[in-house]
Amino acid sequence: MPSYTAPTKDMQYILHDVLNVSGRDIPGYDELDREFTSAILEEAGKLAVQVLQPLNVVGDQQGCKLENGVVRAPEGFKAAYDEMRGGGWTGLDMDPDYGGQGMPNIMLTATGEMFSSANMAFQMYNGLTHGAMSAIHAHGSAEQKASYLPNMISGDWTGTMNLTEPQCGTDLGLIRTKAEPQEDGSYAITGQKIWISAGEHDLSDNIIHLVLAKIPGGPEGVKGISLFIVPKFIVNEDGSLGDRNTLSCGGLEHKMGIHGNATCVMNYDGAKGFLIGEVNKGMRAMFTMMNEARLSVGLQGYAQGEVAYQNALAFAQDRLQGRDVTGVKAPDKAADPIIVHPDVRRNLMDQKSFVEGARAFAFWGSTLLDEGHRKQDKQAEDLVSLLIPVLKGFLTDKGFETTVLAQQTLGGSGFTQEWGLEQFVRDARITMIYEGTNGVQSLDLVGRKLGLNGGKTVMDFFELVKGFIKENEDNTALKEDFLDPLKRASKDLQSAGMYFMAEGMKNPNNALSGSYDFMHLFGHVCLGLMWARMAKASMAALEAGDTDTEFHETKLATGRYYMARQLPMTGTHLARITSGAEPVMALAAANF
Amino acid sequence: MPSYTAPTKDMQYILHDVLNVSGRDIPGYDELDREFTSAILEEAGKLAVQVLQPLNVVGDQQGCKLENGVVRAPEGFKAAYDEMRGGGWTGLDMDPDYGGQGMPNIMLTATGEMFSSANMAFQMYNGLTHGAMSAIHAHGSAEQKASYLPNMISGDWTGTMNLTEPQCGTDLGLIRTKAEPQEDGSYAITGQKIWISAGEHDLSDNIIHLVLAKIPGGPEGVKGISLFIVPKFIVNEDGSLGDRNTLSCGGLEHKMGIHGNATCVMNYDGAKGFLIGEVNKGMRAMFTMMNEARLSVGLQGYAQGEVAYQNALAFAQDRLQGRDVTGVKAPDKAADPIIVHPDVRRNLMDQKSFVEGARAFAFWGSTLLDEGHRKQDKQAEDLVSLLIPVLKGFLTDKGFETTVLAQQTLGGSGFTQEWGLEQFVRDARITMIYEGTNGVQSLDLVGRKLGLNGGKTVMDFFELVKGFIKENEDNTALKEDFLDPLKRASKDLQSAGMYFMAEGMKNPNNALSGSYDFMHLFGHVCLGLMWARMAKASMAALEAGDTDTEFHETKLATGRYYMARQLPMTGTHLARITSGAEPVMALAAANF
Repeated sequence: MPSYTAPTKDMQYILHDVLNVSGRDIPGYDELDREFTSAILEEAGKLAVQVLQPLNVVGDQQGCKLENGVVRAPEGFKAAYDEMRGGGWTGLDMDPDYGGQGMPNIMLTATGEMFSSANMAFQMYNGLTHGAMSAIHAHGSAEQKASYLPNMISGDWTGTMNLTEPQCGTDLGLIRTKAEPQEDGSYAITGQKIWISAGEHDLSDNIIHLVLAKIPGGPEGVKGISLFIVPKFIVNEDGSLGDRNTLSCGGLEHKMGIHGNATCVMNYDGAKGFLIGEVNKGMRAMFTMMNEARLSVGLQGYAQGEVAYQNALAFAQDRLQGRDVTGVKAPDKAADPIIVHPDVRRNLMDQKSFVEGARAFAFWGSTLLDEGHRKQDKQAEDLVSLLIPVLKGFLTDKGFETTVLAQQTLGGSGFTQEWGLEQFVRDARITMIYEGTNGVQSLDLVGRKLGLNGGKTVMDFFELVKGFIKENEDNTALKEDFLDPLKRASKDLQSAGMYFMAEGMKNPNNALSGSYDFMHLFGHVCLGLMWARMAKASMAALEAGDTDTEFHETKLATGRYYMARQLPMTGTHLARITSGAEPVMALAAANF
Repeated sequence: MPSYTAPTKDMQYILHDVLNVSGRDIPGYDELDREFTSAILEEAGKLAVQVLQPLNVVGDQQGCKLENGVVRAPEGFKAAYDEMRGGGWTGLDMDPDYGGQGMPNIMLTATGEMFSSANMAFQMYNGLTHGAMSAIHAHGSAEQKASYLPNMISGDWTGTMNLTEPQCGTDLGLIRTKAEPQEDGSYAITGQKIWISAGEHDLSDNIIHLVLAKIPGGPEGVKGISLFIVPKFIVNEDGSLGDRNTLSCGGLEHKMGIHGNATCVMNYDGAKGFLIGEVNKGMRAMFTMMNEARLSVGLQGYAQGEVAYQNALAFAQDRLQGRDVTGVKAPDKAADPIIVHPDVRRNLMDQKSFVEGARAFAFWGSTLLDEGHRKQDKQAEDLVSLLIPVLKGFLTDKGFETTVLAQQTLGGSGFTQEWGLEQFVRDARITMIYEGTNGVQSLDLVGRKLGLNGGKTVMDFFELVKGFIKENEDNTALKEDFLDPLKRASKDLQSAGMYFMAEGMKNPNNALSGSYDFMHLFGHVCLGLMWARMAKASMAALEAGDTDTEFHETKLATGRYYMARQLPMTGTHLARITSGAEPVMALAAANF
């Protein structure tokens, strides 16, 4: 059985030593001192370790059951959910006017990582509710907010997001679900939605579905899509639950992983829906929540990597097999623990250096979200918009890869269900697909985000990297191991961007053929920057006499590994990118 | 439901246009003309497509059942197995003296690829029997061969390989299974073996277990291991089945994939065993079959990639989503097929260029095995020994990666069981682990194979690459797109080898820390060489007026993609390798 330890010490390090959150001029950040964040993280960690993690295997093995239109979540999920909402976790970052705790996104990110590591399928029920609450908060009328938010924030009700239909996933312009205006101002929603996470279950009293649909007679394509609130039970004016709406779960998907989350086919049969936001502005309403949603999926990716790494490490320190070639390490035992072997370490260091770099990157992205929302800082908001496809695409690709590496550490045991590693691989796999496939993330990055503010935002990013390097170049200890590799990697990224500008003008496919590599190249530069920042912080701490020298020396060694062994990938990505569209597009579709 | 088409045309191309098998001076190859190989491949393809492939999902969903000590394979497996052995496929390459067809390994490889693509879990029953037959043929006495081989070749009996125990996988020196000499010359085998593929099932009348065990009082470690034949039913002198031996299946593993193959815990309780080969020479006996066994696992890796790619391609040509940015391709439809999008093509080309290169590499390796065995060509045998860890490690790592890429092509559909892609991912995953994990392959490559014949064998490989480049450098069409990138990649490989020689002397960990990257670097050079050879063959065919221009132009385009987009990885591998042991080994084990 796999285990999980909450990485609260590492989180505190990133929050305070690296990001200095309580010193930041962002509304709400002044209360985030070490004691405060520690109390929150420890509590969340307890919930994750004691309540959620033991249900992870249960959820995987039992899955969800649909019987007579009712979906039952796995055993224990309902009690765990009650404990979670009882602790106020479902409204952690929500508006206090509606009962939320009003904390910044950074605390949602930090606690969310632990909940995801412990039980990703479970945490998804909260994730979808969060998306629905955010949409209602951002676009709902005062009445809608009053009517739905308090019960969603308290966790009495949950929520969903209904976008996909059988004929349309990425291309939402193809949506067929209809919303016909009714005399009472509501709409009759008719159509089928698929892959609706948490679409139906027994954790909450009501489920508030947010549904994209087309009002007949509206514009073609994405310009004719509106967003609707479609509750499972209609909410009466006094707040009590009224009629059961005409919507139902038509089936559960059988999936590779996340078995504990109910992935539903949802059938809307003239269901009563309420327009949220403006007519035909449904896509815009969706987009406002997209940054948070995509960051949270990036988080899921490395969170699965984290828990997989923890279990791989425990195995490597315990399993005896072979001898250290440079000298026996455990003479009293039949063999040495496999962590002595260089190739096992190479594998573990790949995992560790990614996960810790990813955490810093995600936390940084989360502070940028807060800076954008809470401080109305347009530059921060644009910067995080640029980074979001990287946070989602790179962290989930590498997060999945990390689970595969961790599984490999266990050899044959990694392939058996008993050790639990294979579940992490299967669960992590979805993060590369949902909330926009990683291919779509790369198109967003190259096709939209690079051109943000006429290219100024990406230049801001380069300036930020350059500024950090320049600011610290007198630090000789930092320079050789961290700043120089970061500079080289950043140059590769700039060269790739310049290639896109020059060649993408001639043929857009020159840019689009390299979008995926660009996303990864960008991700490596971001993790390189994070490791350089962590190295700086740890060097400063050691210099200031921090007595936890092992912790900081370990950070430095892990960072050096990333710079030496992972960052060289940028050269390969650049070479692929600059080979252009020709090799990619040469074949006629029929000749594949 | 996934589908499968037998790639016989591509196989014929590699056998004849590229490898010119019938023109090779290898005993048994003279009969391998186009007509003959075509007949075999078409028949094998039919069996794969019509009989085995439809059972692939059945096997995954039903798995094997253990009831009262009896293991039942999934529905339909027994009938399919009877059809397979009825066609003579179980003895395809076995000695005609015992009823085999006596064909070269290359035909086993080509047909085996199709059987594995169609149903890997099923084909494993044959794979294990093949290993056991080979061991008996190579090391058994005349009586043992006569007693076991005819019934195994006919498929009436199957076989297994019993190495792993709970406390030992890679490190077989830790084996505890005992073999106590009996008065009648047999041995009483006692111990527990785990992860025994096809250990117990209902496909055959008898199961011939080959078991590694220690005779009490023998040398410590691997020098005290002997190999035993331990039949499920003792074979009487007249060839009939006698007593049930005291061995049993104690349980089935619950695994991530290959559910259709019974992975057993095998308990030997004083079971009657017969020494095969010499006392304490069990490891040597195992090693003689290792090359074939490891090649066949490399084959499984890319075979799963092949079938996954076929299904990804079909989806990409069918699924309508979005529009080609350079101009609408399907104006009569609601959207264009997703194959128009550059990032979808990038993904498909990664899959296609790997699988086709891998097939050429595996087939080439197989001809080297034949040259070694059938012609007693020591140089060929050494060369293939050098290449075996690359064939196993690289082809399974990249084969698995290919299944993940293919799954990604399908977006959300790829995550559902309905489309079948996720099964390919789960099944392919084991190939990176069994028959020696890929980490162990990389140690074999760097720790043993590089030093083969004092380094002469690896120099032979470099000479072979150089020779090919030199021989063809006047071919300007080949030079720029194929020979130049191959030369650069090969130089990276040589530089890495030189680094190991120089720095590995000072500290073996400098070599061992780079072993995994070296294995991949080597793999890319091999696939680069294969693509250069295929390009040469296709250019020659076009020049000679071959009318199938589309086929050859497609080969050239696919090869150019590999050279431009995959081969640059060698630079990253070299950079990782030359960063040495320091970043990998810096952390104390306790500080991870």
